[in-house]
Amino acid sequence: MIKVGIVGGTGYTGVELLRLLTNHPKAQVSVITSRAESGRAVPELFPNLRGHYDNLYFSAPDNNALLACDVIFFATPHGVAQASAGELLEGGAKIIDLSADFRIRDVALWEKWYNQEHGAKKWVSEAVYGLPEYNREAIKNARLIACPGCYPTAILLGFKPLIEQKLVDTQHLIASAASGASGAGRGAKVAMLHTELCESFKAYGVDGHRHLPEIEQLLTDFSGSKDAMTLTFVPHLIPMSRGIHATLFATLKDKSTNLQQVFEQAYENEPFVDVLPAGSTAETRTVKGTNLCRIAVHQPQGRDTAVITVVEDNLTKGSSGQAIQNMNIMFGLDESCGLHFASLLP
Amino acid sequence: MIKVGIVGGTGYTGVELLRLLTNHPKAQVSVITSRAESGRAVPELFPNLRGHYDNLYFSAPDNNALLACDVIFFATPHGVAQASAGELLEGGAKIIDLSADFRIRDVALWEKWYNQEHGAKKWVSEAVYGLPEYNREAIKNARLIACPGCYPTAILLGFKPLIEQKLVDTQHLIASAASGASGAGRGAKVAMLHTELCESFKAYGVDGHRHLPEIEQLLTDFSGSKDAMTLTFVPHLIPMSRGIHATLFATLKDKSTNLQQVFEQAYENEPFVDVLPAGSTAETRTVKGTNLCRIAVHQPQGRDTAVITVVEDNLTKGSSGQAIQNMNIMFGLDESCGLHFASLLP
Amino acid sequence: MIKVGIVGGTGYTGVELLRLLTNHPKAQVSVITSRAESGRAVPELFPNLRGHYDNLYFSAPDNNALLACDVIFFATPHGVAQASAGELLEGGAKIIDLSADFRIRDVALWEKWYNQEHGAKKWVSEAVYGLPEYNREAIKNARLIACPGCYPTAILLGFKPLIEQKLVDTQHLIASAASGASGAGRGAKVAMLHTELCESFKAYGVDGHRHLPEIEQLLTDFSGSKDAMTLTFVPHLIPMSRGIHATLFATLKDKSTNLQQVFEQAYENEPFVDVLPAGSTAETRTVKGTNLCRIAVHQPQGRDTAVITVVEDNLTKGSSGQAIQNMNIMFGLDESCGLHFASLLP
Amino acid sequence: MIKVGIVGGTGYTGVELLRLLTNHPKAQVSVITSRAESGRAVPELFPNLRGHYDNLYFSAPDNNALLACDVIFFATPHGVAQASAGELLEGGAKIIDLSADFRIRDVALWEKWYNQEHGAKKWVSEAVYGLPEYNREAIKNARLIACPGCYPTAILLGFKPLIEQKLVDTQHLIASAASGASGAGRGAKVAMLHTELCESFKAYGVDGHRHLPEIEQLLTDFSGSKDAMTLTFVPHLIPMSRGIHATLFATLKDKSTNLQQVFEQAYENEPFVDVLPAGSTAETRTVKGTNLCRIAVHQPQGRDTAVITVVEDNLTKGSSGQAIQNMNIMFGLDESCGLHFASLLP
Repeated sequence: MIKVGIVGGTGYTGVELLRLLTNHPKAQVSVITSRAESGRAVPELFPNLRGHYDNLYFSAPDNNALLACDVIFFATPHGVAQASAGELLEGGAKIIDLSADFRIRDVALWEKWYNQEHGAKKWVSEAVYGLPEYNREAIKNARLIACPGCYPTAILLGFKPLIEQKLVDTQHLIASAASGASGAGRGAKVAMLHTELCESFKAYGVDGHRHLPEIEQLLTDFSGSKDAMTLTFVPHLIPMSRGIHATLFATLKDKSTNLQQVFEQAYENEPFVDVLPAGSTAETRTVKGTNLCRIAVHQPQGRDTAVITVVEDNLTKGSSGQAIQNMNIMFGLDESCGLHFASLLP
Repeated sequence: MIKVGIVGGTGYTGVELLRLLTNHPKAQVSVITSRAESGRAVPELFPNLRGHYDNLYFSAPDNNALLACDVIFFATPHGVAQASAGELLEGGAKIIDLSADFRIRDVALWEKWYNQEHGAKKWVSEAVYGLPEYNREAIKNARLIACPGCYPTAILLGFKPLIEQKLVDTQHLIASAASGASGAGRGAKVAMLHTELCESFKAYGVDGHRHLPEIEQLLTDFSGSKDAMTLTFVPHLIPMSRGIHATLFATLKDKSTNLQQVFEQAYENEPFVDVLPAGSTAETRTVKGTNLCRIAVHQPQGRDTAVITVVEDNLTKGSSGQAIQNMNIMFGLDESCGLHFASLLP
Repeated sequence: MIKVGIVGGTGYTGVELLRLLTNHPKAQVSVITSRAESGRAVPELFPNLRGHYDNLYFSAPDNNALLACDVIFFATPHGVAQASAGELLEGGAKIIDLSADFRIRDVALWEKWYNQEHGAKKWVSEAVYGLPEYNREAIKNARLIACPGCYPTAILLGFKPLIEQKLVDTQHLIASAASGASGAGRGAKVAMLHTELCESFKAYGVDGHRHLPEIEQLLTDFSGSKDAMTLTFVPHLIPMSRGIHATLFATLKDKSTNLQQVFEQAYENEPFVDVLPAGSTAETRTVKGTNLCRIAVHQPQGRDTAVITVVEDNLTKGSSGQAIQNMNIMFGLDESCGLHFASLLP
Repeated sequence: MIKVGIVGGTGYTGVELLRLLTNHPKAQVSVITSRAESGRAVPELFPNLRGHYDNLYFSAPDNNALLACDVIFFATPHGVAQASAGELLEGGAKIIDLSADFRIRDVALWEKWYNQEHGAKKWVSEAVYGLPEYNREAIKNARLIACPGCYPTAILLGFKPLIEQKLVDTQHLIASAASGASGAGRGAKVAMLHTELCESFKAYGVDGHRHLPEIEQLLTDFSGSKDAMTLTFVPHLIPMSRGIHATLFATLKDKSTNLQQVFEQAYENEPFVDVLPAGSTAETRTVKGTNLCRIAVHQPQGRDTAVITVVEDNLTKGSSGQAIQNMNIMFGLDESCGLHFASLLP
C-alpha cells in the first residue's frame, strides 16, 4: 500500500482526497495535518466520512511524519507548499501540490499575480505540470508535481487539439467559463454565503484571474511556438456546489475542418477525456464526483467559429482526482486505479 | 384607466404581467383568456395573486371582449398572435405581442427558424420592434409591437453602443449568455424538472437558437450598414429561476477607447439601463423582478478585447416588464410608470 | 413624511427595511448607521438599491441624529438596542426593536437563554410585543416595540385560534418548522456557505433554540391561564434564501370541531393573515417578499390531531415588514400602507 | 456473477440501480427493459453512465429474458409488478419489487389507497417486507421482496427501538418528514419543474399520503400488539434533488430513559444504520448516494417528548440501495457488498 500524507486536509480539496482514497485499492492515508484541527478525528469535521476514517486524526504539521509517507499531497492555499517543499524534497519526498505554488515557470510572473515573493524559487524548475494528457511521461519520474488549477484543466483540454494542430487563429482565443461555489474553498466569506449566491449568476475576476497566466503558459507550450498566446478568460459563478463548464471560442483557419474527428482522435486513448457524440450537450452533472472531463464539439451554422464546451468536476478532475491520477502514474499503477465510477443522476 | 386584455395568461409571462400590473396606477386588467383554465379565478392558478385579482376569471378567447380593451398583450407561444392579430388590428386594437411572431422582418427567415408558415404575413411590416432604447419614437405611434425576446434584449443593449459608434470589428462578435429556467416556460418537460436542472450547468441550442436571427437583424440595424452582421451566440441554462446574464466579446479597433465613458454617455438618460461604475460586477439578483438592465464594462489587461456583461430579469425587462414599458410609451405615460421598484436582497 | 432612523443597516433585516420603505408613501429614511460602513453610500453595499438611495450614506451611530427622527428601527444583533434604548427613550424616541432585546418579560429567563446580563432591565416592562394580530391596541400607544422573531410570528399565528378558543390539549404542542438561510443573517460563517447548505436539509437547535421561551410566553398569554404552556419546537434549515414554514401539531379535545371555520373567523379582518381555502397547500414562495402570513388547516383522516401549516417570509412578516406594520399602527396610518404587493412567481 | 434483470429502468430508481451495480463485484445487469426506450443504449438516456454500460440496451419487456436472470428488480410504478409477478414467480424467479405493489398485507386497504383492484392477490402473502433491520431472516429465503418506500424506511428505523421497547405512548406518534424532489420520479409534471420548486418549501399530501398505511402496518408489527397504531404523517417537499429527513415526535413514558443508549444498542450491529453521537445533527448530505441511514437522538429540555431525526437518501437506502442490500442477503453475500462508499462533501 502507498502511504499517503496530506498537508492541510480541512479544505474541500482535502476532504475530496480523503473521499476518493476510500475507494483506492493501493493507497491509504497515514498522516493528515491541520494546525487548527489537530487532535480531532477526521469524521468529526467531515461526517460524510464516518465509518471510513474513524481512527484517523488530524495532527500538527511535522516533516518527519510526512517523510515517512510515500507521497505527500499539499491541499493548502498558495504559499504553504513553497515553505516546506524544499526540506521535504531534500529528504527524498514525492510531492503533489494541489496549490498554485509551482505551476508558473516564470517566477517574476508568479510574484506579480500572487503579490508576494516566491518562497522556493530553486525548486520551480523541478516541478512538472501535472496534466497527464500533456505531460504523462514527465510525470512518471517527477518528484514535484504542480497539479493544474480547475479552470486551466478544463480550458486546456478543450483548446489542446485545436492549438497543437494549428487549426485556429491564436490571436483572439476566448474562454467563457463558470464554476460552482466549491471552487472558492471552505473559508467563511460573506460573498460565498448561500443567501448571497443562490438564485444569482455573475462574472468575477474579469479584469484578471490568477489562472490566466497558467493557462497562457500552457497554451503557448501546446503551440510549439515561442510567441506568447493570449486568451480572454471570463470566469462566472454558478449557484451550485460542484462543476466547471468552459465554453471556448476560436476562429477556424479552415471552415471545413472535421472538428468532431479531430477531437475524437486526439483523445481516443485517454481514460478520463470523453468526447461526446456529435450533437450532444456537455452537462456538469454527468461528471460530478468523477475524474472525467467531457467535451462537446460545435461549429454553429457551419461558420468559422469553433465552439468547444468542456465539463469537469472542479474538485475531482479539476483538483484532487487529477492529483490521484498523477500519483497512479508516478507509482506505476493503472492510471485509473480507484478513479473509475459513475456520477449520481439525479 | 387603461383597460388591459391578456391573451394566454397561464404561462410565466402572463402571470408576470398580472403581477406587474398590480402596481400600475393607470392600467387595470379587464380580460384574461385561457382556453384550458376558462372559468377559474386567477388566484386559484397563481396563489401569489390572492388578494389582488380575487374577482378576475380566465375566460375563453373572444375577440369582441378583447376589442373592448385599450391594449391587448399576447403572452402566448409563437403562432397564436399570428392567427388573430389581423382581425384585432382591423378592429382597431393596439397589440403588444410578447411572442416571436412579428420580430423578424424577413418572413422567409422566420419560417425557416420556426419551421412553419407565417400566419399573418401582411402585418409583419406594420410591427415595431419594441426595444424602447432603440425604437422609442416608432413605438409611440405603433399599433403592433413585437416585444423583444429575453436574450435579444440583453445582448442588444450590451452591443448597441459598440456597434453604433463603430468601435469594434463586426466579423466575430460573441455572446456567451445564460438564463434561469423560467425562460423555458411553464410547460411540463422532463428536461426542466428540478431534479434534472439543479446542481448542473450546460449550454444548449449551440447549433442554432431561435433568438439568433432576431439579434443579427437588430445588430445590422444598429450598424447602419446593409452588410448582415454575424454573431456566435451560445446560451446556457443556470440552475435558478429568473435572470439572464450575457457576456459579450468584441475586438476593439482602438485599444485606447474609453469604453466606460462610451456606455455611460449612451445610456445616461435611459430609465431602465444602469451602467455600473467601473470595476463593478453585474449580478442577476440585483435586477430580479425589476425592469432594469445593468451593464458592466471591462477591457481585460487593457488588451483589444472588450468584455461587456449585461444582466436583466428574463421575465421583466426580458419580456413582461418591457411590454408594459412599451404600453406606457404608446399611451403617453411616464415610461417608468408602475415599473420603479427594487429587487429583493437576499 | 415620517422620518425614519435605522440603527445597524448592514444586515438582512436592515436592507429589507430599506427595500420596503422605497414603496412607502408616508415614510422616508433619513439616518442609517453602521460603524463599519460609515461614509459609504447605501447602494455600494446593496446594489439592488441603486436608483433608490443614491444619496443616503451610512453614518456612525449618533443619538442626536437618531433623536431627530420620528421613529428608530434597531436592525441589530441582540444586546445593541439594550445599550442605547434608555437614552433614546428618555429623549422622547419611538423605538421599534427587531432584535430579541425586549421580547421576554422575565429578565432572568432572557439572561439564561442569551447568556449575558440584560442591559436595560428597567425598560423591559415598557416594551410592547409587536404582534399586531394580538396586541394592536397596545401598539398604538407604545414607545418601545419588541418586534417578534421570525419563527414566533409563524408559530403564534398558527396556534392562536386553537389556544384562545381552548380547542386543544396544551400539554404536547409541537412545532416542526423550517427556515431559509437568510434567518441566520449576513455574517460570514462556514456553516452558512452555499457549498455547505445547498442540496441538504437538517434540524438544528433541537435541544434549545432562543425563540422557544418567547413562543411559550405568548402561548401562555393566549391561553389566559397562569399555567406555563410547553412546546416542543424543532427548527430546520432549508436550502433556500427566504421563507419560513411551520407545521404545527395539536391534539383536539373534540374531533368534530370545524377547524377551517375557526381559522377563517379568527382572521377574517386581518390584512396580513390569509387563511387558505380548505384543501389548499401553503407554499413559502407565495409570500416571498410580502408581509403576508398564509395558513392552511388540516385534520388528517378526521382523527384527533390538528395539523396547521403556516408560511411567511422571515425577513418581511417575520421581521422588517412586521416592523413597518407596527410603525403604521403607531402613527395612525392604514396598517397596510406601503405593504400591499404580490410576490414573484416563479 | 449474479445476473440481474431490471424491469422499467428509465426512472430514477432504475438509473440508481444501474449506478450502484457499477460498483458491485458479484452482480451484473444482463437485461433492462423499457417499452418506450427499447433499442437505445443505456448511456444515451443516462449520460452519467457513459463508459459503464456502453453495450447495454433497453429491450422490450420479455418474461423469458427475465427468467434467465438470477434476480429481477421491478423499478416501475405501482401496478406493473402485480401484472407479471405471478408468471415470473411460477417460473422460478426471485423478485425484488421497488414499487408499492406487495407492501400492504391487507388487500382491501391497498385497493382503497391505490384506488384500483389489486392484480396479484394470491401473491401478497408470499411477499416479505424488505426492511433488513427488521426482517433479515425472512429475506434470506424470500422469493418476492416488497422493498419499503422511502418515507417508511426512515420513519420505521427511527421509531423501531421506541416501539419495540415500549418506551413511548403510541396514541399520538408524529412524523414530520421532508423529501427532495427525486421522490416524485422522472415524470414530466408542472408542479415538479425547477421553476415551481426552487426557493420554496411546502407540505403536501397532509390529508393522506400512500405511505401512511404501510408505515402504520409496520409500527403495529413492531409493537407486537394487535391494536393498530396510528401516526400523523406530514410529508414536505425540499428544493433539492435527493434526501429524506424525518423528524419524529413521541411522548416518553419515562423521562429518565437513556434514549441515546437505547438507539446505540439497538443498532450496534447494523451495517447501514449509524446512530450519531449525542449532540450531533443528522444532515441529508452526509448520506447522499449512500445506503446509510443516520439517526440523531434528542430529548429537548429533558421534557417528556422524544425527538428523533433520521436521514437517508430516498433513492438509495430509501429504494435502490436497499433493494441491493436485500439481494445481497438473498444470495448469501456480505450484506454491504458493493454498497460501502462515502458521500460527496460538499
